[in-house]
Amino acid sequence: MSERIWTAGLVVIGDEILSGRTQDRNVAQLAVWLNVQGIRLSEVRMVADRTPAIVEAVNTLRTRYDYCFTTGGIGPTHDDITVDAIAEGLGVPVIVHPEAREELEAHYETRGGLTEARLRMARVPDGATLIANRMSGAPGIRHGNVFILAGVPHITAGMLAALTGTLEGGRPLVSRTIGCWVAESEVAELLRAVERDHCGDAKDAAVAIGSYPFFREGRVGANFVVRGADGDAVARCIADLSERLALAGYNVTPDGI
Amino acid sequence: MSERIWTAGLVVIGDEILSGRTQDRNVAQLAVWLNVQGIRLSEVRMVADRTPAIVEAVNTLRTRYDYCFTTGGIGPTHDDITVDAIAEGLGVPVIVHPEAREELEAHYETRGGLTEARLRMARVPDGATLIANRMSGAPGIRHGNVFILAGVPHITAGMLAALTGTLEGGRPLVSRTIGCWVAESEVAELLRAVERDHCGDAKDAAVAIGSYPFFREGRVGANFVVRGADGDAVARCIADLSERLALAGYNVTPDGI
Repeated sequence: MSERIWTAGLVVIGDEILSGRTQDRNVAQLAVWLNVQGIRLSEVRMVADRTPAIVEAVNTLRTRYDYCFTTGGIGPTHDDITVDAIAEGLGVPVIVHPEAREELEAHYETRGGLTEARLRMARVPDGATLIANRMSGAPGIRHGNVFILAGVPHITAGMLAALTGTLEGGRPLVSRTIGCWVAESEVAELLRAVERDHCGDAKDAAVAIGSYPFFREGRVGANFVVRGADGDAVARCIADLSERLALAGYNVTPDGI
Repeated sequence: MSERIWTAGLVVIGDEILSGRTQDRNVAQLAVWLNVQGIRLSEVRMVADRTPAIVEAVNTLRTRYDYCFTTGGIGPTHDDITVDAIAEGLGVPVIVHPEAREELEAHYETRGGLTEARLRMARVPDGATLIANRMSGAPGIRHGNVFILAGVPHITAGMLAALTGTLEGGRPLVSRTIGCWVAESEVAELLRAVERDHCGDAKDAAVAIGSYPFFREGRVGANFVVRGADGDAVARCIADLSERLALAGYNVTPDGI
């Protein structure tokens, strides 16, 4: 029985990521959150603050995957062009959302009032609903399967918390790890044999095995990660892999090194 | 006079990035290195360990930009499929590179010998040259404008060091930052005015202004970053922006907060 796999794409928007000024944190944050929702992050694109780049990335990922998320570029300044670009990509006008306007009016009542620049943060692609933001004035935006989130990681986190449990997904991705103090090239054949027995055709496989070498405390080692939506299949694969490694004379560290 | 801008794309390959297990460090590392070479990182794609996804991303970015880099998936195990996928995308066979074979033989002479799995790391798309790797056995690979690098950040760093100064680029990107303890929405209009006077059409602009808000020590603030290849234009813009912020009554912190 082949189970429906729910998928998502992410577009990270911002010159500060591509210039190396800012270390992105939202890819890992969204990936972990999606796993719990039973949705797989399948592709990420990072683009500059330029309309054609945003339009291309969002239009590709929103049609290719079940969900498309974006982070960045929804603030009040001239370089925040995400909403306009996505509206262009969706072929809808930009409108001022009445609830967003009210929220911003309340937020800025004691902070100098709602200026024209601040009102920019109430602008949404026509047809959108809002995603709550308790951290700062500007809400996130949902339009169909497109989710427009903030770029500052702790504000993104608040928006994801507001979305938790509201998106349809499949079974959460299960991940189990074991580790060995071994050069991964020594056990490559063993891994390949386990992969052949448990994974079959990569696209429809119940589990996938990843090998992640490291160099620590003057020694080489590797962690082996088995991932899949079927917890039993993951457990069977990790048990088989552990047994074969032990038979080959390696000490296996449960839960990885 | 419009100057030639040299551009690069990056494909980050690996399930461990998309599952959230591993925090990517190579986007920022490559971006900073490219800036010094006078090359602009224009787009990043993160894809899973699946051949069609790698082929699509690499073929798009290598034709769209001057250079295409990849990180990840060049080790000895079954999930390391980068070389095969890129060869498929380039339409060339995979061969064992004689020099890579020699290097691996030397490296593994005292480490248990060159097994079949280890020999996998000598495989390259036909027509490729090697990028030195002093950290571990497996070299990086160059094929035309495609650069295939390791995924482990300190090994990636070694390969970038080997490439330093060998790629044609333009003037390095210059970046200057100032900061204010101010809500960015308060100065959005001022920023927009400076942007209009200095940036013109975004695509050919000599400089770009980014606004990066933060919340620290219980107060809101923002850093303003001016970037461009023309150091004089960047300096003029930052001076003008500082002056207008000071005239509006804000304390400007040179070099950012």
